[in-house]
Parts: sequence; structure tokens; C-alpha cells
Amino acid sequence: MFTKIYNFYFITVVTLTLLNASACLREESSGSAEIIKNIQLVMTAQVQAWNNGNIEEYMAGYYHSDSLRFASGGTVLYGWESTLDRYKKGYPDKSTMGVLTFSDVDITIISENAALVFGKWQLERENKTNTSGLFTLIFRRTNLGWRIIHDHTSSRTN
Amino acid sequence: MFTKIYNFYFITVVTLTLLNASACLREESSGSAEIIKNIQLVMTAQVQAWNNGNIEEYMAGYYHSDSLRFASGGTVLYGWESTLDRYKKGYPDKSTMGVLTFSDVDITIISENAALVFGKWQLERENKTNTSGLFTLIFRRTNLGWRIIHDHTSSRTN
Repeated sequence: MFTKIYNFYFITVVTLTLLNASACLREESSGSAEIIKNIQLVMTAQVQAWNNGNIEEYMAGYYHSDSLRFASGGTVLYGWESTLDRYKKGYPDKSTMGVLTFSDVDITIISENAALVFGKWQLERENKTNTSGLFTLIFRRTNLGWRIIHDHTSSRTN
Repeated sequence: MFTKIYNFYFITVVTLTLLNASACLREESSGSAEIIKNIQLVMTAQVQAWNNGNIEEYMAGYYHSDSLRFASGGTVLYGWESTLDRYKKGYPDKSTMGVLTFSDVDITIISENAALVFGKWQLERENKTNTSGLFTLIFRRTNLGWRIIHDHTSSRTN
């Protein structure tokens, strides 16, 4: 009886330890493909919204919080509303907004709840100078899905 | 005897489970102050090295890898050596380097092994136009300590 209990005890302890270790590992490594897919969906929706002239819908990709940080050139803004205002002032109509494309987008998963996204942006505009540059985004997993909490943008002419 | 073994078994299983759970939690939440201190030490050493005219020593804060990414304006570079070359060409002597200061530095710990650092940089130079801007850094914990793996810099004039 003692031997049987001892074996049962040993197996249970090892199993529980492995299950816990596996839970820790899962926190760090699994679900990468799903995270990447979800972030890509958010960014694709942003491009579609922008190219439909809908800045509010484009802004849905950003975390709706006062803590949202948007850095560009030498200027930093905080908050979703301030970022929306900046976009509305900078791009008052569809022709100013032009056609947005993202390219060379690289997604690095930092943790189960955070990712670094780096890539190039380009705006093609009729009768206006095209403009392009680079972006660094930090996405976090929120209750509403993956959202940008930090955006640092620079442009080619900068 | 059975009861004693059973109790011992129960207590050990509960203890091991709690220890494992505690290890998982520790992975996510503890050591924040130490992480912040270590990152601040790296950045302070960078500023001192820069202001001593030592670009190689300044570059010690960056991950010594071909995967290091350095984005500025519309240009992206990969690799520690390429980043060093860029700095050496852009800042050929101590007077061009000027006096570097970082300010409004905000460190966000993303995981036990990664942090987002955002702040302002300024170069004060004799007989030259001062220049300033913003930086987004991603630090990772490496075998040699905390190092920058991604740098996106923009300047006020950009």
C-alpha cells in the first residue's frame, strides 16, 4: 500500500509540476500566429478606413484612453481624442488623406499581451507631394482586442 | 500511517502548486524597480560616453547583433556595425556631437525581459544649431544585461 501511494504521490507531483511549467511556457510562447493575425486585421481595417476617408474608423485601431501616446517629429500627444484632433486638422478632407499603404511590416511578439510593430507608411495624393516614412507601434491586448497604445511616426523628409 | 502519508502528500501537492503559481506571478510582476534601475544605468552610461566623445562606448547600450534596428526619419538600418558607422559619419568629432541630454524619460515594463522607453533627446552645440527630438526604444534583457534592440528616433525639424 505504501509503495502504491508513494508512486501515485510521485506521479501526481511530477504531473502537477509539469502542468505548471507548461502553463508558464504557454504564457510566453503560444498563440503567436493568432496574435499576428489579429494585429494584421486591425491594421488592414485602419488602411481601409483611411482610404474611405473615415478618420474615426481609422482611429478604432488605437487604444481609446488618455494614456495613448502619439509621437511624431519633435511633438508628442497623449490621449485618443487629441490624436483624433491632430489627424482631423492635418487631413481635413479625402484628397489630403490620399491613399495609405503600409509595407515591410514586421511584427515582433514581446509577450502574450504585447507586440512591437515596425514598418513603412506611404500616402499617395493627387496634385500633391506624396509622403512616406516609418512607424513604430506598440500593440497591447485589451478587452476590446489588440490596440495601439504607442505610436512613433517619422517621415522621409524629416 | 496511511493518514500521515495522505496528509504529507496533500500538503506537498498544495505547496508545490502554490510555489509554481508564485513563480509564474513573479515572472510577470516583480523586479520592476530593478529593471528600471538597470535601464537607467545603461542610458546614463550612454550619455556620459557621448559627452566624452566616445561613440563606441555609447554604442555599448545597443544589442551587439545584426538584428539591431535603428530607424530615423525615413531611413532604417539593421545591425550594430551599421548603426555605429551612421553615428561616426553623422558626428565626426566632439564639437559635432555636442552635449547630449535625455529628458522626460518614461520606462514602461512590458514583460520580465522587455521594456518600452520613450523620451526627449537634445544636443547642444557650440556655433551650431541645437537639435532635439524624441526617441522610442525597446530594451531586451540579454546575457550581457539590458540592451536596446530597436531605436526609432525623430527630430524636431522633421
